[in-house]
Parts: sequence; C-alpha cells; structure tokens
Amino acid sequence: MFDYTLCAEDGAARAGTFTTPHGDVRTPAFMPVGTVGTVKGLIMEEVERLGAGMVLANTYHLYLRPGHELVRRLGGLHAFMRWDGPILTDSGGFQVFSLASIREIHDDGVEFQSHIDGSRHAFTPESVMEIQRALGADVVMAFDECPPGGADRATAEAANRRTLAWLERCRDRFRELEDESEGPEQALFPVLQGNVYGDLRREHARSFRDMDDWPGYGIGGLSVGEAKGDMWRILELLHGELPDDRPRYLMGVGYPDDLLEAIARGCDLFDCVAPTRNARHGTAWTSEEGQVNLKAARFREDTRPIDPGCDCYTCSRYDRAYLRHLVVSAEWLQVRLLSIHNLRFLVRLGEEARRRIGDGTFDGWRRDWLERYRKQRSPA
Amino acid sequence: MFDYTLCAEDGAARAGTFTTPHGDVRTPAFMPVGTVGTVKGLIMEEVERLGAGMVLANTYHLYLRPGHELVRRLGGLHAFMRWDGPILTDSGGFQVFSLASIREIHDDGVEFQSHIDGSRHAFTPESVMEIQRALGADVVMAFDECPPGGADRATAEAANRRTLAWLERCRDRFRELEDESEGPEQALFPVLQGNVYGDLRREHARSFRDMDDWPGYGIGGLSVGEAKGDMWRILELLHGELPDDRPRYLMGVGYPDDLLEAIARGCDLFDCVAPTRNARHGTAWTSEEGQVNLKAARFREDTRPIDPGCDCYTCSRYDRAYLRHLVVSAEWLQVRLLSIHNLRFLVRLGEEARRRIGDGTFDGWRRDWLERYRKQRSPA
Repeated sequence: MFDYTLCAEDGAARAGTFTTPHGDVRTPAFMPVGTVGTVKGLIMEEVERLGAGMVLANTYHLYLRPGHELVRRLGGLHAFMRWDGPILTDSGGFQVFSLASIREIHDDGVEFQSHIDGSRHAFTPESVMEIQRALGADVVMAFDECPPGGADRATAEAANRRTLAWLERCRDRFRELEDESEGPEQALFPVLQGNVYGDLRREHARSFRDMDDWPGYGIGGLSVGEAKGDMWRILELLHGELPDDRPRYLMGVGYPDDLLEAIARGCDLFDCVAPTRNARHGTAWTSEEGQVNLKAARFREDTRPIDPGCDCYTCSRYDRAYLRHLVVSAEWLQVRLLSIHNLRFLVRLGEEARRRIGDGTFDGWRRDWLERYRKQRSPA
Repeated sequence: MFDYTLCAEDGAARAGTFTTPHGDVRTPAFMPVGTVGTVKGLIMEEVERLGAGMVLANTYHLYLRPGHELVRRLGGLHAFMRWDGPILTDSGGFQVFSLASIREIHDDGVEFQSHIDGSRHAFTPESVMEIQRALGADVVMAFDECPPGGADRATAEAANRRTLAWLERCRDRFRELEDESEGPEQALFPVLQGNVYGDLRREHARSFRDMDDWPGYGIGGLSVGEAKGDMWRILELLHGELPDDRPRYLMGVGYPDDLLEAIARGCDLFDCVAPTRNARHGTAWTSEEGQVNLKAARFREDTRPIDPGCDCYTCSRYDRAYLRHLVVSAEWLQVRLLSIHNLRFLVRLGEEARRRIGDGTFDGWRRDWLERYRKQRSPA
C-alpha cells in the first residue's frame, strides 16, 4: 500500500509521488499541522482547498487529550477529525522532550509529566507504537531521543545509540500489532538523529538501512537551534546516504526559505507550526516583500491582497487594510485568514518546486526566489 | 428604498418583509452581530449560508478602530467587511454607557474614555449621525440615553426627555447629511426608552410618532437586567402603540426562548451577542435538550450532532464527541463551529416562526417549543 515513485530530479531536488492507503502525496509537500486533531481554526474542507496532500497530528497531544483509545473507539483519527486524506502522526518524542517536564529518561523509555495537569505518564517504544496504532494514521514515526541543538558529541552519540535500540523495539512491536489485528494499513518511518556531527549522521543512516528496508525516513534533530549552514551540510550528507526510492521527511521545517533550501537538498516532506503560529502573530509571507507583519501602519489603507500572486481564499477576497484591522483588533478571523494564506503559501511553494524540478528549471528559479524573498524581507 | 410589508399575523406575532437598498429581510429575523466588522471567527459566506438576512455592526467599536473616516475611504462598511446584504449600525450609545468609562453626560452629548486606550472622545447626536453616514449601513440608529435596569422613575423620565431631544437633533443632522451628498441610502430608526414604566413607554412612543413618520422603531432599555415579566408587559403595551406597517427592532435580545416570547409580542428584528459568546464558553442550544455545555463528560463518546434536527454545517459534519474535544482543548475551531450552530439556531427559529405565523399555527407551536426547551434545559 505504500510506495514512493521518483518522477524527476534536478540536482539533489526530487519530485515524487508517495502512495498511501488514503491517497497519493505529490512531493515535495508541506504538511499542515493538526496538533490535537484540528488544523488551528480551519475546517478540513479548507485544508483540502489549500491543496494539502497530507496532514500531521501529534501523538503526545492526542494521547493526553482525548486519549488514543477514545479516538480508536470513535473510528480512528481520520473519522475523528473528518479527514479522508493521508495522515502522519509523530512519535510524541519531540513534545515529551520540549513541552512536558521530563522526570527520567532511561533505556526503557521516558517518564514525564503532562503539560496540562502535571499527571505522570511513560512512553516506551512499544507504547508509542500502540498509541499510534490506535490513532490509525497512515504513517507512524518511531520513538526517538532528540537531544537539544548544541548538544555535545557524547550526548549526540548516546542519543543515537538509544534511538537505534528503540527503533528495533518499535519495529518489533509494530509488526506484532499488525499481526494481531486487521487494523489500519500503516507505514513506520525511523527518525534519524546525530545532531550536526557528520560521522554520527552517516553512521546512523547506515545502521538504519542495515536494520531494515524502511518505507521512508524521518530526519530529526535539525531545526532545533543549530546554525543554518550545519543543517544544509547534514542534508547534503544524508542525500548521499538515503535510498533514492524512499521519501524523506524533514521534521519541523519550516519557513519558506528553509523549505526551498531543504528541497534543493533532497527532502520531500515537511511540517511546521510556523504558518499558523505566524498567523496568530499577524505575520504573513509574500513572494515580493518577504515576511510582513500586518500590524504595520503602512497597511492601514492598503487595498492590495497580502500577496497579489497568491491564489488562496484570503488573497482572493480580502485586502491588507481589512486584515490589518483584524490584527489590530485581535479578532478571531485574523488567525483563520492568515493561516489559510500562510499554509497555502508553503503548499504552493512545494507545488511550484515540483513543477520546476519536472522541467529542469528548479535551481535557477530557487536562487531568484530566495534572493527576492530575502532582499525584501522586513523584520517581523 | 425602505419599506415594510406585513404579510401575516397570528395574535400579536407578525411575518413581514423589510425592504432595504441591499435586499429584503424576511421577519422575524435574528441579526448576527459583527461588532468590529466581523462576525466573530466567521467569513461572510458562512454568515450568508446561515440564512441571515441582515447583520449588525457597532458604531462605538468602528469609530474607535479602524475609524469611520477610514471605513468611508475604503468604500464603506459593506465593502470593508465583504457583505452585500443589509447592515444595521447601532448608535454607539449602549457601548458608551456599558463599556467605556463615562466622564460626563450632558444635554449636548456624552464625553467618554475609550475602553482600549483611555483616550478621550465625545459623542453628540450630530456626530453619531456623521459617523454612521461614513460607515454607510442601511439602517442607522438614533443616539439615545439608556439608563441601567432598575433605574428609578425620575432617572427614566429624564433619560426619556433627553432621548427625545436628541432624536430631533439626530433627524435634523441626518437630513442635512442626506442633502449634502449622494452618499448611501439610509433609514434612521429612533430608539424607544422608558425602562419598565408603562406610562413613560406609552408617552415616549406617542411623542416619537408625533415627531415624524419613522421607517422603523428600535426598542431599547429592555433586556438590561429587569424581570422577564416586565419586558413582556412593556412589549405588549408597545404593540398597541407602534404602527403596524413599520418594523420593530428589539435591541439586545436574545436567547432562543426570549426570541420566541418577543416574536409572540410583535417584535420583528433582533440582535444579541449570546450566540457567539455562548460559543466561546462551549455552550450550544438544542431544541430537544435545551441549552447544553459541551464540556460535560456525558458527551465524551456521543456521536450525535449537537441538535439532530439542525441543518447547520456543524451539525451536518461533526459530532458531540469531537466538539467536546475541541472545547476541552480550548481549540480555535470550537468558537467557529459552535457560533455557526448557535447563530443558525436563532435564524432558523425566526424562519420557523415566520412559517408558523403564515399558516396560523404559531401560538401552539411556540407553547410546545418553549415547554420542551425549558423542561430539558440543563444548567449551563
């Protein structure tokens, strides 16, 4: 049921089709984040109209609320959140390490306290597979240890070893669960770690490939505070280490310029809360003026859409003057309209990259696009 | 351009058609509130799909932000908020008396401080006409003094006198403005005061009718804390005093049961923030179970829509279990989905009342409806 077809390449950049039980995802593709089973403020018909092929939901959040067993009883995540397209759930690891308060990390798993009510919980590689089985996403992620950006080599090395050991346990439990019940068809992606250490990255990738033939690869431990140059260097290295015929999901990226840079280095799938978080702060992306904050007084009587080249609902219907009024008045509609624009902006960037890769004009286009975007970029 | 045709009556209840430059409003009609030029969280296509014939916006809020002159330069309120249907703006009086901090009320007008930044402003009958001219709504309201519920007779009497004097100034300035420019076609409604004092109410209504032939009447000073019985008594009294062939707008009502009671007493137009405010608190209205709060644990696995008899988007697409999850998680989508339901609930109540008035079954239906609604009404 899962398959990745590479349709075209331009340098390291790839255009492909990732087939899942809930439909095809044409890559490169940005996945909107539906943290607790809702893309903040949007109905799923709107998400579909954005052209989003696949959405992401967070295991950590759904485990705490409403609980994975409840989601299972209600028919699984697709039915629960009214989305018939492909879904990917993360492992919960990133949230446990960044959001919850950790009580203990040991070889068996992680003990943590809920960020909601302080209640105590534990994730193990096995339990994370069970939770994601109950949620029923198409793609599930292996439980990994993600050290913070700036971690020293010894820490990164230890996290790599643990992630590798956990991966084996994830795979075994994942297979057991598949055998136990008809359940949903799912693909398990491992998560590559190794921080900014090239040799650890290479070693991790090779160990993963030795362990199994994975349907896709998650690239973790980037965009966690390291220098941009380090991220690009690691992606270039991984491009040579990962199989051509499997999708590569760069976790937590990103902003428009980072997305293009990562596509240029062979990444296929992306997710980030930046589009919706920026929407909450009144910030929108434009191709001609970079990132703008609509609160600025210069938009007071500006009757142009946010981005005249954009085909989203917001740009087709509203002008900057009205959107500025919503932002200044802290109105609910602001979040919705700016989220639609920012999400469409990234989805469209993936679409255009794919087209450019197909006709061999990706690299020149990317350079021009980035130059224009960065030159105009105003401080948010 | 403005006309009210009475189509049917059942007791005091009236079905009519109110014609405006931006279309007909079939009454009884609930008007969604778009405080600062947005019905909280909704796009205007959604408001249209609710069946709403007319929306309300608040002069006080728009005067402060973004400013009425800016709205005028941007093409007026219809263009600004993307709503081609009829709009009514209130006079700002109610917000000045309830939201701003009053510095002084005198015969010329009211001095107040903005609730946003404490800046000083003044409203006079004339300035309120100028502001509403700039906004360009179809129906504009006269500037009135609305004493709080429980005001003594002397206070109510003084407010009546002032409101009457202000009304004459409003009318004169309104006509001057009409003569000065092509501008939008607008209708000016006076606002009846008199608190719960029957003789003051009667006197006010008669003075208004003596002063002019108004295109419609606002009924103010009710639903401000008085006993329900007092409100019904005043409406019954006014039914005999107001002309049959003019619409009556009961300001600030209301909840579903109040709406039905007021329709039964001859009111045609209504507005209230209750549908959207309740949505923010997780509260929804149902015809079989009264008012329910979706946070309740009993909805945890409830796969029914909020109201199985409702035809709104929310009820056609989502179940209580998912909505409860949104409410418990304080997700943005909650406000939007519950607002759609609650607004549709009131609009539909108006539609059904109209149908029942037309076929002469209004009164029995109303009694049954209220009995069922109130019997089941759970504490929110």
